[in-house]
Amino acid sequence: MLKVIVCGATGYTGFELIKLLLKHPEVEISAISAKIEKPERISDIFPELKGILDMHCDEMKIQDMIKTGGRIAFLALPHRVSMEFAPHFLEKGIKVIDLSADFRLKDTSAYEKYYGQGHKCKEYLATSVYGLPELYNDKIKGAKLIANPGCYPTAAILSLAPLISKKAGDIKELIIDAKTGVTGAGRKANLAFNFAEVAENMWAYKIGTHQHAPEIDQELSALAGQNIKVLFVPHLVPVKRGILTTAYVKIKKCPAVSELIKLYKDFYKSAPFVRVYDEGKFPQTKDVYYSNFCDIGITIAEGRIVIVGCIDNLIKGASGQAVQNMNIMCGFKETQGLL
Amino acid sequence: MLKVIVCGATGYTGFELIKLLLKHPEVEISAISAKIEKPERISDIFPELKGILDMHCDEMKIQDMIKTGGRIAFLALPHRVSMEFAPHFLEKGIKVIDLSADFRLKDTSAYEKYYGQGHKCKEYLATSVYGLPELYNDKIKGAKLIANPGCYPTAAILSLAPLISKKAGDIKELIIDAKTGVTGAGRKANLAFNFAEVAENMWAYKIGTHQHAPEIDQELSALAGQNIKVLFVPHLVPVKRGILTTAYVKIKKCPAVSELIKLYKDFYKSAPFVRVYDEGKFPQTKDVYYSNFCDIGITIAEGRIVIVGCIDNLIKGASGQAVQNMNIMCGFKETQGLL
Amino acid sequence: MLKVIVCGATGYTGFELIKLLLKHPEVEISAISAKIEKPERISDIFPELKGILDMHCDEMKIQDMIKTGGRIAFLALPHRVSMEFAPHFLEKGIKVIDLSADFRLKDTSAYEKYYGQGHKCKEYLATSVYGLPELYNDKIKGAKLIANPGCYPTAAILSLAPLISKKAGDIKELIIDAKTGVTGAGRKANLAFNFAEVAENMWAYKIGTHQHAPEIDQELSALAGQNIKVLFVPHLVPVKRGILTTAYVKIKKCPAVSELIKLYKDFYKSAPFVRVYDEGKFPQTKDVYYSNFCDIGITIAEGRIVIVGCIDNLIKGASGQAVQNMNIMCGFKETQGLL
Amino acid sequence: MLKVIVCGATGYTGFELIKLLLKHPEVEISAISAKIEKPERISDIFPELKGILDMHCDEMKIQDMIKTGGRIAFLALPHRVSMEFAPHFLEKGIKVIDLSADFRLKDTSAYEKYYGQGHKCKEYLATSVYGLPELYNDKIKGAKLIANPGCYPTAAILSLAPLISKKAGDIKELIIDAKTGVTGAGRKANLAFNFAEVAENMWAYKIGTHQHAPEIDQELSALAGQNIKVLFVPHLVPVKRGILTTAYVKIKKCPAVSELIKLYKDFYKSAPFVRVYDEGKFPQTKDVYYSNFCDIGITIAEGRIVIVGCIDNLIKGASGQAVQNMNIMCGFKETQGLL
Repeated sequence: MLKVIVCGATGYTGFELIKLLLKHPEVEISAISAKIEKPERISDIFPELKGILDMHCDEMKIQDMIKTGGRIAFLALPHRVSMEFAPHFLEKGIKVIDLSADFRLKDTSAYEKYYGQGHKCKEYLATSVYGLPELYNDKIKGAKLIANPGCYPTAAILSLAPLISKKAGDIKELIIDAKTGVTGAGRKANLAFNFAEVAENMWAYKIGTHQHAPEIDQELSALAGQNIKVLFVPHLVPVKRGILTTAYVKIKKCPAVSELIKLYKDFYKSAPFVRVYDEGKFPQTKDVYYSNFCDIGITIAEGRIVIVGCIDNLIKGASGQAVQNMNIMCGFKETQGLL
Repeated sequence: MLKVIVCGATGYTGFELIKLLLKHPEVEISAISAKIEKPERISDIFPELKGILDMHCDEMKIQDMIKTGGRIAFLALPHRVSMEFAPHFLEKGIKVIDLSADFRLKDTSAYEKYYGQGHKCKEYLATSVYGLPELYNDKIKGAKLIANPGCYPTAAILSLAPLISKKAGDIKELIIDAKTGVTGAGRKANLAFNFAEVAENMWAYKIGTHQHAPEIDQELSALAGQNIKVLFVPHLVPVKRGILTTAYVKIKKCPAVSELIKLYKDFYKSAPFVRVYDEGKFPQTKDVYYSNFCDIGITIAEGRIVIVGCIDNLIKGASGQAVQNMNIMCGFKETQGLL
Repeated sequence: MLKVIVCGATGYTGFELIKLLLKHPEVEISAISAKIEKPERISDIFPELKGILDMHCDEMKIQDMIKTGGRIAFLALPHRVSMEFAPHFLEKGIKVIDLSADFRLKDTSAYEKYYGQGHKCKEYLATSVYGLPELYNDKIKGAKLIANPGCYPTAAILSLAPLISKKAGDIKELIIDAKTGVTGAGRKANLAFNFAEVAENMWAYKIGTHQHAPEIDQELSALAGQNIKVLFVPHLVPVKRGILTTAYVKIKKCPAVSELIKLYKDFYKSAPFVRVYDEGKFPQTKDVYYSNFCDIGITIAEGRIVIVGCIDNLIKGASGQAVQNMNIMCGFKETQGLL
Repeated sequence: MLKVIVCGATGYTGFELIKLLLKHPEVEISAISAKIEKPERISDIFPELKGILDMHCDEMKIQDMIKTGGRIAFLALPHRVSMEFAPHFLEKGIKVIDLSADFRLKDTSAYEKYYGQGHKCKEYLATSVYGLPELYNDKIKGAKLIANPGCYPTAAILSLAPLISKKAGDIKELIIDAKTGVTGAGRKANLAFNFAEVAENMWAYKIGTHQHAPEIDQELSALAGQNIKVLFVPHLVPVKRGILTTAYVKIKKCPAVSELIKLYKDFYKSAPFVRVYDEGKFPQTKDVYYSNFCDIGITIAEGRIVIVGCIDNLIKGASGQAVQNMNIMCGFKETQGLL
C-alpha cells in the first residue's frame, strides 16, 4: 500500500480527496493536516467519515508528516500557501500533487497579477507538470510536481482541445460562458454564499477577469502553437457541485457536426474519463455528478460551433483528477479507485 | 403620511420591513439605520431597492433619527441590542415595535437563561404588549411598546390557541415538531448556512432547548390559565423562507375533527390573516410564501390531534406581523399594505 | 373599476397575473377560465388565494365571459390556442393581451416552423402590437391586440436595444447565452422537470433552435433597420423563477464602458422598469425576484461588450409586462399595481 | 462472479442498485429489464452510465432473464407488480430480493387496506424474511425471498429498536415525525413533484395513514413482544434524497441519556452500518448522503426521549440495503461494495 499525505483536509476538495483515497485499493492515508484551532478527529469535522476515518487532523509540522512514510503529498491548500509547503516535500523526494493554482501558470507575472503576490518558488515552478492527463499523460508519468488543473480550465480545455489542436489558425472568435456550483468557492463562512443568498438566484462575476482565464489561455496556446486568448465569463448557479461550460467558436470554413464529433472521439479515444456525446445529445451536470468524467456535447448553430462540457468540479475538477494523476505517476491503472 | 423609523435595516427582517412599508399607503420611512462600517445607500446593499429607496443607511444617532419626525420606531435589531435602543424612543413618546426577543418574556430569569444576559430594561418590559394580533388586538391598540412575536411562536401559538383556550385541562401530551428555512438564522456569514452545507441536507437542532420554547409556553399558559409546557424541536430544511409546525396533542376525550375545525374557524372568525383549512386539507409553506397569512390544517390520527401550521417566517413571523401591529396601533385597516 | 377577463388561469403565468390584478387598484377580475376537468374554485387550485379570490374557474364559453363585462381579456393560454380565442373577444371590441407566442412573429412561415402549425388568424396578426413598452409605448396606447413578449426575448432585447439602435452596422458577432428557471416550462407534469431531475443539475437545450430566437431577431432587426441574427443558447438552472441573459457583442471600434452605460441610461431614461447599473456592478436574478424590473449591467472584456440582463420570467417576462401593457392601453400610470 | 438480475431498472432505486452492483467486486449484472416502450440502452436512459454499462434494457420475458444465469433477482418494481414476478424466479431456485412492499406485511388484510389490492402470492409471503440486517441477520442468511424494508421504516425501526426491545412495556407515547426527499416518490411525471412546486416549499401528507405505518408497527411489535402502534407523520422537504426521522417517546421512568446511548451502542455493536452518536451530537442527512449508513442521535428533552435518525432513502432505505442483504445471503462480507 502506497502511503499518501493530505494537507488541507478540511476544505471541500480535501474532504473529497480523502473519500476517494479511502476507496482506492492501492493507497493508505498516513497523515492529514489542516489549519485548525486545535487537533480534532476528521470524523468530527465531517461526520460522514465516522467509523471510516477517525484519524486526528491538526496543524502538523511538515517534518512529522514526512516521518509517516508518505510517498505522495496532496496539497489541497489555498493559493499562495501551497508554494510554501511544496519544496519541503520535494526536497525529501516526496512527490507533490498540488490542487492549488500555485504551479499552474508558467508566466510568473500572470501569477502575480491574478493571485496578488509574487511567486516564491520559481525553481520548482519550472519543472511542474500541468496535470491534465488527457493532454500530458506521458509527462505526468515522470513528474515530481503536478499542478492539478483548476475546475473551470478542466472543463474548458477538454471542451476545446481537439478543435484547437486541429483548427487553431482558423478560429475567429472564442467565448466560454461557464456556470458553476457553490463548492467552487471553498468551504468558508461568507455571506455571499449563504443559502439565503444563493438559492433562487444566479449571477455573473469576474467577467473577463477570472484567474482561470490565463490558465485556459496558456494551455490552449500551447496546444495551438500560437497565442490564444479566450473571453471567459463565469456564473454562479444554485447547485452544490457541477460545472457546465458552453463554448462558442466562430471558425473559418466550419466543418460538419459529424466530422467534429469524429475529431473529438478520435482525440479522446484513449482517455477513459472523457465521453463525447453522439450528435444531437448534450450532457447535463447530473450525468457526471460525483464522477471523474468530463462529458462533452457538440453542435453547430447559426454558423458557430457550440460545445457543452460538464464536470463535477470537486472530482474531475479537483480531487478525482488528482487521484487520476497519482494513478498515472504510480503506474496504477488510470481509472483505479475512480470508477 | 405617518413617518416611521427602521433600525436594523440590513438584516433580512429589516429588508422585508422596508419593502412592506414602501408599499403601505399610509406611511413614509423617515430614517433607516444599521450597524455598518460606513454610510451606504440601502439600494447598494439591496439592489432590489434601486430606484425605489435610495436613502442612505448608516449608524445614525438615535437623536438624529428622532429628529426626522418618526412616530413609530421598528427595531429589527439583534436580541440584547433592542433593549438599549427602545427606551430612547419611548421617552420621546415614539412608539416602538420591537422585532427582537427583548420584550417578549415577562420572566426575566427565563430571558437571562435563554439569551445569556440579564435584562436591562425591566421598567418597559412590564408594559410591553405581546404583538400577536389574533390574541391581543385590544391591548395592541393602546400599546406604546410591542414585543413582536418570534417566528416559531407565531406558527406554534396560532396552531394551538383555540384548542388550548378550550381544552387546556384535558391535554396529556403536547409536542411541536417545527421546520424552518434559512433566513430564520439571520443575514450573516456562517459556514453552517453556506449553500453547500444546507442544500440537499436537513437537521434537528436545540432539541428542547430553543429560546422560542419559553415564549410559546408563556403565551399558551396565559391562554390556558394554567401552566403549559411544550416539547419544542426545531429543524432546518433547505428553503430560504417558510416555517411549518406540526403539533401533536394527546387529549382526554378527543373531539371529532369537524368539531375541532369549527372551534378553530370560530376562534379566528375576526382574524383576517388566519386561514383554517377544511377537513382533509393541509397547508404547504408555498401557500403563505411572501404573505402575512398563517394557514392551519387539522386532523386526528391514531387518537391524537395533529395540527399543521404554515407561515412565511419573514412576513407573518416577523415584518408583516410588525406592520399588522402598526396598523392596529394607528387605527389603519388591519390588512392595510399586507394584502 | 375596469373589468378584466383571464383565460388560462391555472398556469404559472395565469396565477401570477391574477395576483397582480388583485393588487391593482383600478381593475376587477370579472371572469377566469381554464382547461380543467370540472369547475373548481381557483383558491382550491392555488390555496395561496384562499379568502382573496374564491371565484370558480372552469371551461367557460367565451360568450359567457364576454357577458361579465370584461373590457380586456388576458390570454395566458398555450401557443396555438390563443389564436383561436382572440378573434372572439376582438370582434366584440374587447381588447386582448395575449401572453402566448401567437401574435408575436409577423412572419407566418417562421411561426409555422417554430410552433409546428400554420397561423390561423393572419388578419389580426397584421394589427398586433409587440408589447414591449420600452420600445413601443406609443403603439401600445392605441393597440387592440397586444402580443406580450416572450420571457427570454424581454431580457435579451432590453439588453441589446440601445446598442443595436446605435451601432447595428458595426456588430460583428452577437451571442446570447441565457439561463432560466423552471417555471418557464409551464405548470404541468413532466419527468424532465421533476425536482429530483432538476435540483443539483443544469443543462443547455434547443441550442440555436429555440422558438424565441426568431422573436429576438425580428425585434432587433426592426430596431437596427437591417437584418440581425443572434446565436441564442438557453440553459435550464435549478431555480423556480428568474432569467439571466449574458450577451456577447463584438463590434468595430468598441466604445468605452462609461460611454456605453451612458447610452443605456439615456435610452431607458423614461422607462420605469429598466435599471441600468453603474460601471463595475452587475445584477443578480434575486434583485428582480417577484418584480417587474429588468436590470442590466454592462462591461467590456477582452475587446467584447458583455451585457448581463435579469428579469423575473413570470413578471417582467410575462404577467407583469401584461399588466404594464394594460396600464398603458388604459391610461393608468405605467407602474400602477407593479411597484 | 455471481450473476444477478435487475427488474425495474429505470426507477431511482433500480438505477442506484445498478450503480452499486457495478462497483461490487463479487457480482456481475446478467440482465436488466423495465417497463419501457421499446428496448433502449440503459446508458441512454441514464447517461451517467455511458461507457460503464451500455447493456440494453427492455421488457424482457422472465424466462429469458432466467436464462442469463442470474442467481439473485432484484425486483425494484412497483408494489403489486413484484408479487407477480417473484414466484417465477423462486420456482427456478433463483433467490429474490424484493424492494417493493409486496412481501413486507405478514397481515394480508393490512396489505389490502394500504396497497389497495388483495395479496396474490400468500404462499411465498409466509416464507419471506424482512430484510433489515440489524434485526434479522441470521434469517437473511438462509432466506430465499427477502422483503427489503421501506425507506421510512428503515430509519424509524433502527431509531427505535434498542429502546423498544428493552422498554416496550413502559412506553406511554410514541410519535414519529419524518421528513423525506423527493426521490422517495419515484421517477415519474407528476405535477406535485415538479421543481417549481417543491423548491421553497414543504408539506405534511398522509397524516396517520401512510402505508409505512403498519410496517413499522409490525416490526416494533415483533421486537416488543406486544402490540405497538406508532403515530407516523411524513413530510416532504425539498431535497432529492435523504430521510430524517424525529421520534418522540414518553416512557415511565425515563433513563439517563448516557444510559440510553450505551443501550444503543451495545445493541448495534455488530452492525456495520449503524452509527450511534455521542451525547450532544445529532446527525444531518448529508452525513449519510450516498451512503448505506443509518446515523442516530439521542437526547432527552422535557422528559421525553427524542431520537433523530438519518438515512439516504435510496441507499440504506432501498438499494444499499438490498446489496447488504445480498452480501449476507451469499456469504460475502456484509459491507462489500458498500463502503
